[in-house]
Amino acid sequence: MVFWKSLFNGSESTSASKETLFSGDPLEVTGTTYAENGARICFSLTRELDLYELEELCDAVGWSRRPLRKVRKAMEHSFLVVSMWYIKGAKRRLIGFARATSDHAFNATIWDVVVHPDFQSQGLGKSLMKYTIDKLRSADISNITLFADPQVVDFYNRLGFLVDPEGIKGMFWYPD
Amino acid sequence: MVFWKSLFNGSESTSASKETLFSGDPLEVTGTTYAENGARICFSLTRELDLYELEELCDAVGWSRRPLRKVRKAMEHSFLVVSMWYIKGAKRRLIGFARATSDHAFNATIWDVVVHPDFQSQGLGKSLMKYTIDKLRSADISNITLFADPQVVDFYNRLGFLVDPEGIKGMFWYPD
Ligand SMILES: CC(C)(COP(=O)(O)OP(=O)(O)OC[C@H]1O[C@@H](n2cnc3c(N)ncnc32)[C@H](O)[C@@H]1OP(=O)(O)O)[C@@H](O)C(=O)NCCC(=O)NCCS
Ligand SMILES: CC(C)(COP(=O)(O)OP(=O)(O)OC[C@H]1O[C@@H](n2cnc3c(N)ncnc32)[C@H](O)[C@@H]1OP(=O)(O)O)[C@@H](O)C(=O)NCCC(=O)NCCS
Repeated sequence: MVFWKSLFNGSESTSASKETLFSGDPLEVTGTTYAENGARICFSLTRELDLYELEELCDAVGWSRRPLRKVRKAMEHSFLVVSMWYIKGAKRRLIGFARATSDHAFNATIWDVVVHPDFQSQGLGKSLMKYTIDKLRSADISNITLFADPQVVDFYNRLGFLVDPEGIKGMFWYPD
Repeated sequence: MVFWKSLFNGSESTSASKETLFSGDPLEVTGTTYAENGARICFSLTRELDLYELEELCDAVGWSRRPLRKVRKAMEHSFLVVSMWYIKGAKRRLIGFARATSDHAFNATIWDVVVHPDFQSQGLGKSLMKYTIDKLRSADISNITLFADPQVVDFYNRLGFLVDPEGIKGMFWYPD
């Protein structure tokens, strides 16, 4: 499935082709790329995700489980929720996710970036991040931040994220 | 005015003594500490701040000015807005500020922490931060984060914030 890689290197993944996937579908797709086998990858900004499907995606990369009640609340109060879908015929599958908190004016912080292992290393994480950054920029957010696990610092670096620019340090509060 | 310092080392600054300062006053004071000269320092969670007064405070520490329209929007969409007041008799003065963005469930990020230079080095920054952390904790937020300028890393460190715990790196997006 390496063919996705070249497809996603350009900016086509963030082109705004609005469409509804299925009638009565809560997915409002805003970016679509077609692949050679008739399958396509779509992005959606819906908050109406099936939380069990999201949990399955997070399980697949080994993240520890979180109470669905809190996940629902976090989704409601995120500024941006981005989901990435693999769609072939009438079938669709949630294969990626990212969200951001924000003050809607100056700052946004991206959390929970994930691509399903079956779809990793094909340029889709990059597309997902580019799509997310694009949405934040078009909402006039100038300061886009995140906290990166050590093994993904390079991944974000290739996307234009810098570690500790001007000596600014990410800090976490740890109760005694 | 060094007497504030000892007053604020304990937890009394975050004790919940609700009161209204002046009749019709939008300040809902939730933490008060009295000082020997009859003055007191109060904390408030109101979003109804005079933005010019806030701008004056930020000017005093040399921060670059931001459009008030955006500041207003950021205040509206912050999870928590904390202001710190010096009150003596009928006079009151905004002397400190902090705010946090959050998904209301897992993460909060603290921004724009400031104490007026006239009131710095007396333990008030520490009180302001403790008050803020306290409010976030009581809202059941487990992950409290921030991005610290190099000269204030030690300040946050003393409050229990760690730089890059487990190698997690703060990153900022810089457009090419
Ligand atoms: C991190 C993650 C989202 C990357 O998604 P992906 O679809 O595999 O990434 P891509 O294929 O788009 O890779 C884009 C680029 O980053 C590089 N890259 C991908 N993962 C990387 C990593 N862990 N370290 C360094 N570089 C990485 C790729 O080689 C590629 O480089 P190129 O543009 O030169 O070809 C995915 O691996 C994942 O979900 N991991 C588990 C969850 C996780 O750790 N999330 C981040 C939490 S902070
Ligand atoms: C940073 C700031 C909020 C601290 O407020 P403050 O009221 O002066 O701080 P406090 O008096 O409560 O200091 C608490 C402790 O931190 C220490 N401290 C204060 N500022 C410090 C600094 N810049 N570097 C290292 N330690 C510092 C104090 O010595 C004190 O230590 P102690 O508990 O051992 O006595 C204030 O200096 C300020 O507004 N600075 C300008 C704006 C700014 O830089 N904000 C942060 C942006 S990320």
